[in-house]
Amino acid sequence: MLSTQTISEHASKDSCWIIVHGKVYDVTGFLDEHPGGSKIILKYAGKDATEAYEPIHPPNAIIDNLSTEKHLGDVDPSTVTKVVKVISEAEKQRQALIAKRPPLDEILNLHDFEAVAKIILPDKAWAYYSSASDDEITIRENRAAYQSLVPSRILRDVTVVDWSTTILGQKSNLPVYISATALGKLGHPDGELNLTRAAGKHGVIQMIPTLASCSFDEIVDAALPNQPLFLQLYVNRDRTITKRYVQHAEKRGVKGLFITVDAPQLGRREKDMRMKFVGDDAGAKVQENMSGVKKDEGVARAISSFIDPSLSWKDIPWFRSITNMPIILKGVSTPEDAVLALEAGVQGIVLSNHGGRQLDTSRSGLENLIDIVNVLKTRGPWPNPNFSVFVDGGVRRASDVLKALALGASAVGIGRGFLYAFCSYGEAGVEKAFKILGDELEMNMRLLGARNLKELVPEMVDASALQAHVGATPRDNLFDSTYQPLRLAEFKAAKL
Amino acid sequence: MLSTQTISEHASKDSCWIIVHGKVYDVTGFLDEHPGGSKIILKYAGKDATEAYEPIHPPNAIIDNLSTEKHLGDVDPSTVTKVVKVISEAEKQRQALIAKRPPLDEILNLHDFEAVAKIILPDKAWAYYSSASDDEITIRENRAAYQSLVPSRILRDVTVVDWSTTILGQKSNLPVYISATALGKLGHPDGELNLTRAAGKHGVIQMIPTLASCSFDEIVDAALPNQPLFLQLYVNRDRTITKRYVQHAEKRGVKGLFITVDAPQLGRREKDMRMKFVGDDAGAKVQENMSGVKKDEGVARAISSFIDPSLSWKDIPWFRSITNMPIILKGVSTPEDAVLALEAGVQGIVLSNHGGRQLDTSRSGLENLIDIVNVLKTRGPWPNPNFSVFVDGGVRRASDVLKALALGASAVGIGRGFLYAFCSYGEAGVEKAFKILGDELEMNMRLLGARNLKELVPEMVDASALQAHVGATPRDNLFDSTYQPLRLAEFKAAKL
Amino acid sequence: MLSTQTISEHASKDSCWIIVHGKVYDVTGFLDEHPGGSKIILKYAGKDATEAYEPIHPPNAIIDNLSTEKHLGDVDPSTVTKVVKVISEAEKQRQALIAKRPPLDEILNLHDFEAVAKIILPDKAWAYYSSASDDEITIRENRAAYQSLVPSRILRDVTVVDWSTTILGQKSNLPVYISATALGKLGHPDGELNLTRAAGKHGVIQMIPTLASCSFDEIVDAALPNQPLFLQLYVNRDRTITKRYVQHAEKRGVKGLFITVDAPQLGRREKDMRMKFVGDDAGAKVQENMSGVKKDEGVARAISSFIDPSLSWKDIPWFRSITNMPIILKGVSTPEDAVLALEAGVQGIVLSNHGGRQLDTSRSGLENLIDIVNVLKTRGPWPNPNFSVFVDGGVRRASDVLKALALGASAVGIGRGFLYAFCSYGEAGVEKAFKILGDELEMNMRLLGARNLKELVPEMVDASALQAHVGATPRDNLFDSTYQPLRLAEFKAAKL
Amino acid sequence: MLSTQTISEHASKDSCWIIVHGKVYDVTGFLDEHPGGSKIILKYAGKDATEAYEPIHPPNAIIDNLSTEKHLGDVDPSTVTKVVKVISEAEKQRQALIAKRPPLDEILNLHDFEAVAKIILPDKAWAYYSSASDDEITIRENRAAYQSLVPSRILRDVTVVDWSTTILGQKSNLPVYISATALGKLGHPDGELNLTRAAGKHGVIQMIPTLASCSFDEIVDAALPNQPLFLQLYVNRDRTITKRYVQHAEKRGVKGLFITVDAPQLGRREKDMRMKFVGDDAGAKVQENMSGVKKDEGVARAISSFIDPSLSWKDIPWFRSITNMPIILKGVSTPEDAVLALEAGVQGIVLSNHGGRQLDTSRSGLENLIDIVNVLKTRGPWPNPNFSVFVDGGVRRASDVLKALALGASAVGIGRGFLYAFCSYGEAGVEKAFKILGDELEMNMRLLGARNLKELVPEMVDASALQAHVGATPRDNLFDSTYQPLRLAEFKAAKL
Repeated sequence: MLSTQTISEHASKDSCWIIVHGKVYDVTGFLDEHPGGSKIILKYAGKDATEAYEPIHPPNAIIDNLSTEKHLGDVDPSTVTKVVKVISEAEKQRQALIAKRPPLDEILNLHDFEAVAKIILPDKAWAYYSSASDDEITIRENRAAYQSLVPSRILRDVTVVDWSTTILGQKSNLPVYISATALGKLGHPDGELNLTRAAGKHGVIQMIPTLASCSFDEIVDAALPNQPLFLQLYVNRDRTITKRYVQHAEKRGVKGLFITVDAPQLGRREKDMRMKFVGDDAGAKVQENMSGVKKDEGVARAISSFIDPSLSWKDIPWFRSITNMPIILKGVSTPEDAVLALEAGVQGIVLSNHGGRQLDTSRSGLENLIDIVNVLKTRGPWPNPNFSVFVDGGVRRASDVLKALALGASAVGIGRGFLYAFCSYGEAGVEKAFKILGDELEMNMRLLGARNLKELVPEMVDASALQAHVGATPRDNLFDSTYQPLRLAEFKAAKL
Repeated sequence: MLSTQTISEHASKDSCWIIVHGKVYDVTGFLDEHPGGSKIILKYAGKDATEAYEPIHPPNAIIDNLSTEKHLGDVDPSTVTKVVKVISEAEKQRQALIAKRPPLDEILNLHDFEAVAKIILPDKAWAYYSSASDDEITIRENRAAYQSLVPSRILRDVTVVDWSTTILGQKSNLPVYISATALGKLGHPDGELNLTRAAGKHGVIQMIPTLASCSFDEIVDAALPNQPLFLQLYVNRDRTITKRYVQHAEKRGVKGLFITVDAPQLGRREKDMRMKFVGDDAGAKVQENMSGVKKDEGVARAISSFIDPSLSWKDIPWFRSITNMPIILKGVSTPEDAVLALEAGVQGIVLSNHGGRQLDTSRSGLENLIDIVNVLKTRGPWPNPNFSVFVDGGVRRASDVLKALALGASAVGIGRGFLYAFCSYGEAGVEKAFKILGDELEMNMRLLGARNLKELVPEMVDASALQAHVGATPRDNLFDSTYQPLRLAEFKAAKL
Repeated sequence: MLSTQTISEHASKDSCWIIVHGKVYDVTGFLDEHPGGSKIILKYAGKDATEAYEPIHPPNAIIDNLSTEKHLGDVDPSTVTKVVKVISEAEKQRQALIAKRPPLDEILNLHDFEAVAKIILPDKAWAYYSSASDDEITIRENRAAYQSLVPSRILRDVTVVDWSTTILGQKSNLPVYISATALGKLGHPDGELNLTRAAGKHGVIQMIPTLASCSFDEIVDAALPNQPLFLQLYVNRDRTITKRYVQHAEKRGVKGLFITVDAPQLGRREKDMRMKFVGDDAGAKVQENMSGVKKDEGVARAISSFIDPSLSWKDIPWFRSITNMPIILKGVSTPEDAVLALEAGVQGIVLSNHGGRQLDTSRSGLENLIDIVNVLKTRGPWPNPNFSVFVDGGVRRASDVLKALALGASAVGIGRGFLYAFCSYGEAGVEKAFKILGDELEMNMRLLGARNLKELVPEMVDASALQAHVGATPRDNLFDSTYQPLRLAEFKAAKL
Repeated sequence: MLSTQTISEHASKDSCWIIVHGKVYDVTGFLDEHPGGSKIILKYAGKDATEAYEPIHPPNAIIDNLSTEKHLGDVDPSTVTKVVKVISEAEKQRQALIAKRPPLDEILNLHDFEAVAKIILPDKAWAYYSSASDDEITIRENRAAYQSLVPSRILRDVTVVDWSTTILGQKSNLPVYISATALGKLGHPDGELNLTRAAGKHGVIQMIPTLASCSFDEIVDAALPNQPLFLQLYVNRDRTITKRYVQHAEKRGVKGLFITVDAPQLGRREKDMRMKFVGDDAGAKVQENMSGVKKDEGVARAISSFIDPSLSWKDIPWFRSITNMPIILKGVSTPEDAVLALEAGVQGIVLSNHGGRQLDTSRSGLENLIDIVNVLKTRGPWPNPNFSVFVDGGVRRASDVLKALALGASAVGIGRGFLYAFCSYGEAGVEKAFKILGDELEMNMRLLGARNLKELVPEMVDASALQAHVGATPRDNLFDSTYQPLRLAEFKAAKL
């Protein structure tokens, strides 16, 4: 047990100790490797860093990244002076905004949650959540794709419509699952638990993210008995860690393993990267320090250095060998890879571009769905009871969900929609989001003339409109900002 | 006969009586079922609610929804104190705006009526009339579809051009009928009667809405002898009510029955829903009262709970059995359903998406027309004298009408165009709208080189432009409002 | 000879005399028929109306419209008091703006002329010149069509490039002629003479408009000996007038007769119509006087009531019989009519939509050109030395001209481009416009690798881009102005 | 040796001497021929013009354009009074802005450099660099083309990705070369040397422009031993000059000769032309001096009068005869010309539209690439080791580069991207640009699933999206600025 007195003596570059969750760590040797830069650590040298550490690191980040001899042991609690937490002016303003947020009754759609979150989230959280890669073309294409048109059928008795389904063998009250998004505590103190609790009450399935702010076990503990959960997996360079993690998940009852395959490296997300410069004194060092590469990479890359870029088809049999959970590859975008996945014996794929956060200008999952279903139909029964095809990205409306299902999707993932729901209203926001989707599903199934999900057929989507890119084209904002429009000849004095 | 004194003693949740049109009703048991919420009723508990009730309920709403033992009888008129009506500040401002509206001579097109109505209508009326479903893509697609291009023929003697026609056997001076829109008194004290009177004078056919503010008989009484009228029908869960209504209409001379088939449930129209929160104290209950579902549904759903979602093709023979009026299915959008309608022996269909108010992202009637006519041509003579194909939605110009007719429509329905005409200028506005359409029809038929409606041929519309969606793509406003454009690197001080 | 004293006694509705160009007319019986309304005439009752009359009427309008017994004779000049012309405040401001206009050296392109004209023209002139029909879709489509893409050829010796050509047998220094636009004095006191003089100096051919502000003979008198001129013809209901006019033109040496066939009636141009209400006291009569139909028709229709809507293919032989000039039909838009024209034995057609002023949503001439040339190629030699195909509408750049020529046009007409040039800078403006086009033609022919107009081939235009409507889609401004975008849930206080 | 006293006596139109780089020239006879007009020369008559001359003329402009008898010899340095350079107010403001520019660490992409340059460059430099021809459609099409979509492959081991390549036999650390842009000193005192030095350090190949501000030898001298360099060539009307220049380049080790073939005349760039009028007193001469043609041509044309428009395929053998360097034709846009180039025996082509600065509305290089590769594949092996196909124009992101490579490009040229990098941050900016591209290439190759450039295959680009012009359509800014949108009927008073 170390006293705070002792710890406070290690407060420099030469010897830097910090406290996280009551444990003391020697991070001197790690300062230069810290993806977020050494400066931010040195702020807490010799002090308790828990509050700054927690929301932006996955629970075991420090333990996993620091060799055990640097784990110095527990702080002596008797030596800890209770720090009076100072609430910053920015935080006070934020709390005032939260008090003024629209009552939950006035939230009519998933966009509304995002509008509220945009205003009440701390800047760094909004930057991290909302950012996408490069010119952010794909994140907007994802949305535009759903503007494709639908015909509807009439005069069917639609008194009773049923949108419940089964996802990977698990019952779900919605044809929608909660897709994984990282670092939930940036937006709400309860983080991912908001999703777990609401999902339990309403019979919806949550996919637990590897990069959750809450630990895996906290999340599972918050679930009801038999509440189905999936797990999203970033594969670690150290496969023993991955194996331990996967097998622990299976033991705790997780019902599906979604291996992310579109992120050998996490994307450059410039909104997130820009945040790093705000408020820092980094501005002082113009044109120096070209070597400080890791400084400008934002939250996303700071937390993801463990991800293994060597992951390949050759690893699939190994995954099959360590778990009996259904294995789903998350991030497929071509018919070729869909067929490889089928042949590799996994249980499904997610047509996803990672919410527009990875390869920019990649096509929307919805657009890829048509080609991929066409190929899969030539390779076996369709729909294939042993091979699910999920879609995510850009979904905001039940009509979006129904279009994907009509074109062949087994179910649809929504990430940011639920994330913004809990950021703005906690667990109640997520419940409201479920209710909105339910209301919209009932309405739209009636209007489409589909009484259950089986009655959704490809003819219900005008695929030609989808392929003609009927939705609005995303603007190229950076180019447009620098392009200076031509001007006409000007009169001599301005006062016309 | 009940005295106002007695009635005023029933002014609480526990016993709530109200007066409507001189009759007393006990609505205590109905408070929780009221689609508009109990709060609005309790405002009038023990008092006369007529003025608030009238414009937003169809004439028999209270009678139809309340069991007869709750009909307590007449108010004793001798006990009624004449209330001095207080005109609100908002209403005074509105009246001042009305006084400043452009003279009718300056109205050049149907858009102008809408521009005037937008400014002088009470907010709730504008919200109800102008709203469409979800992201309001379809209401704008409807308009964009008419931007498709036309070639014209030259050097035909177009001294005399004739745009009169016959609709379901009735003569019409325009190839256009007045399509049904609900709740006309929200916008003008005379409500639908404005349309009836103007239509009578100018030889145009009005379709009476089920959800008119004026009663069916008031409207028929306002018509000239032999003035043809159609009836739009929402089918009631209680078919005896429907039967009585239809047979009464036929007896009073109605010439066509348009059964709405695209609205098993009325759409979520968020502009309308948002209005419910303005000025209410609903704002106080953030995050509570999740169960108060019916609170947030706007006018549209409040008035439509009687509509039967079980309506199906099986009901058509029954309709055939109760009336000899031509039966038209309003709201068809696919070739498959068009053929089913033909086979079901009805007299026609309306290619409609309910003015963009039902299934969002559904295609425009104009776009569907091409495919549907192509199929119908394979199923009998074309044009088929026993099967009419109407189109509505987005029509603002005579050139729009002519495009639809050229592609095969029998006639075209205009709803909002005439609605806004009477909202802004009463009956004279509707007359002006007819005149504008007549002027535009004369002009455009001359320019197209068509001397009568038979000379309008499909070659006069560039269908390839229609299918290439040449018209401007509707913006996704909610998404665009939350999407935050990328920004470039910024200079240190703003004063550049 | 009538004294001004006598004339001034006829200054009422009951007896209304006016003076125009020194002649006295009794217009009492004409008051109600005046397309511009009686009010404007009554302003000048008993007085000299010449100044108001001149710029907006073709020279013979009053003579042609008034029976000869109403021509009362000459004013006695000795009785005329010289009126001191009062310059209005608006006119003074306009003159001040003219003084500040950019020096002609700074005019870089044809757009610049329009930008200058827009500011310095009187409001009515700008409204009349710039207006197009209905929603003004076509006027913008005309421009967008030229945004289609071009490939260019390289490594040809382009030291000498030659863009001179022959149009209907007449030499022209540009592959461009000046297309007819009406009422030139609205924009410049010398009206169409600006064009005639500049055209003479630079070897360009002017098409004289029927509705010129200057008389036909004034224009011809201003031309150089042997300067070729064409004539644009609106056909009069009274064919003897037309015959006299055409034969007079031929006698005076006109080299081509362009009969307008796309205007059996002149289009509704709402910008022009709106102008009628500004500054008038018409605003007072809201909702009255529905019969005053002719009041709201703007300049365009006021001056065009003589045009014969019965003009048809049957008239062509008659035209052939009264003149030996080449006959060109101006306003063709379909392959069918192009073939009819060829078969009717005329010498050519102009693919035109009247500058977007007639049938709105008609396609651009450039787009029609492809289909029409394809058909004509099957009907004889191509290019056909006896049948010219011209294109006009939307041309602003030499590259536009070259695209049309590459696709098969014989030459290209430019109307507004030259009109705005003289409105802003008189004759020097037109000369500058020729020079700009010459510079651009030289540049672009070199860049395309075409040394003369024969080397322009269809492969030099990416017709697929043209048909995919690569250019920007025109916005539907009136609809967009009334459409109210959806809004997100709002925070309680605005001060976010 | 001439004294400044003597020189100052020749300070008029009649005898005009100037000093440039210590040499005296008699430019009296050249005054009228000076592409920039005589006025600007007369400002420096009898004085030292070096400072004004240097940044906007290529090093030998005066020597090449003035016959040797006008080269009067050296200034006697003993007579030169050191002039105290006055820094203008505008320049002071500019320096203040430079001090506030974002630190280099905050530059995240190539757009950022342009954003900084736009603010800190002198107006004339920004106008010259950023301008494109006519309506600047092509410069924006170039960018829009890269918005086409990409599918990516998954589950390949992308631990190691390698984007190095060989360009015309020279090793390059990027699949990108620095394309030639003229007059670098307008933007930075070290001009093109910034590129040379950074390229040397990072193993990138620079193409030296004919119109560099630094002399050819200065640039070569700044290179490392064996640093590969290419040369861009504008062919002089006087081929002996060209021959001398090319052979000198080869002797100094240049490894590739890029002959510009899309610029027989330099384009009209109106932004650049407009600059000429700002601050000049040219404004005074409205409507006079029509003959002063050369006055309004901007920097671009001022410096390019030597370029030979007669250059043709016949010249290629001559080039082959005077050098052994690989010869590349820069500016090809059609399959026909690509085949001619192959047959002419050159070593490659650049699909380029000169950065949108020459023929406006020409297609993007990327779009042309598909057709051209398709044809070349039928004419020999593919990829052809003896025939390279380069692409330039609009490239801002590594993903753009990868799309071009996937479709068959050998490498990609970036001009403005690097130009703006050194304008804003000098040599360090260029280094940063290389680093950004490297980071993006690593990221995107991993995300595409391509471990080296050979694994980039055409299937990785959705060419149908490219041909459907999925990217945003450039607005027609001049037309849109003059087009006045229709307005609705207006209320009498504005205070609504």
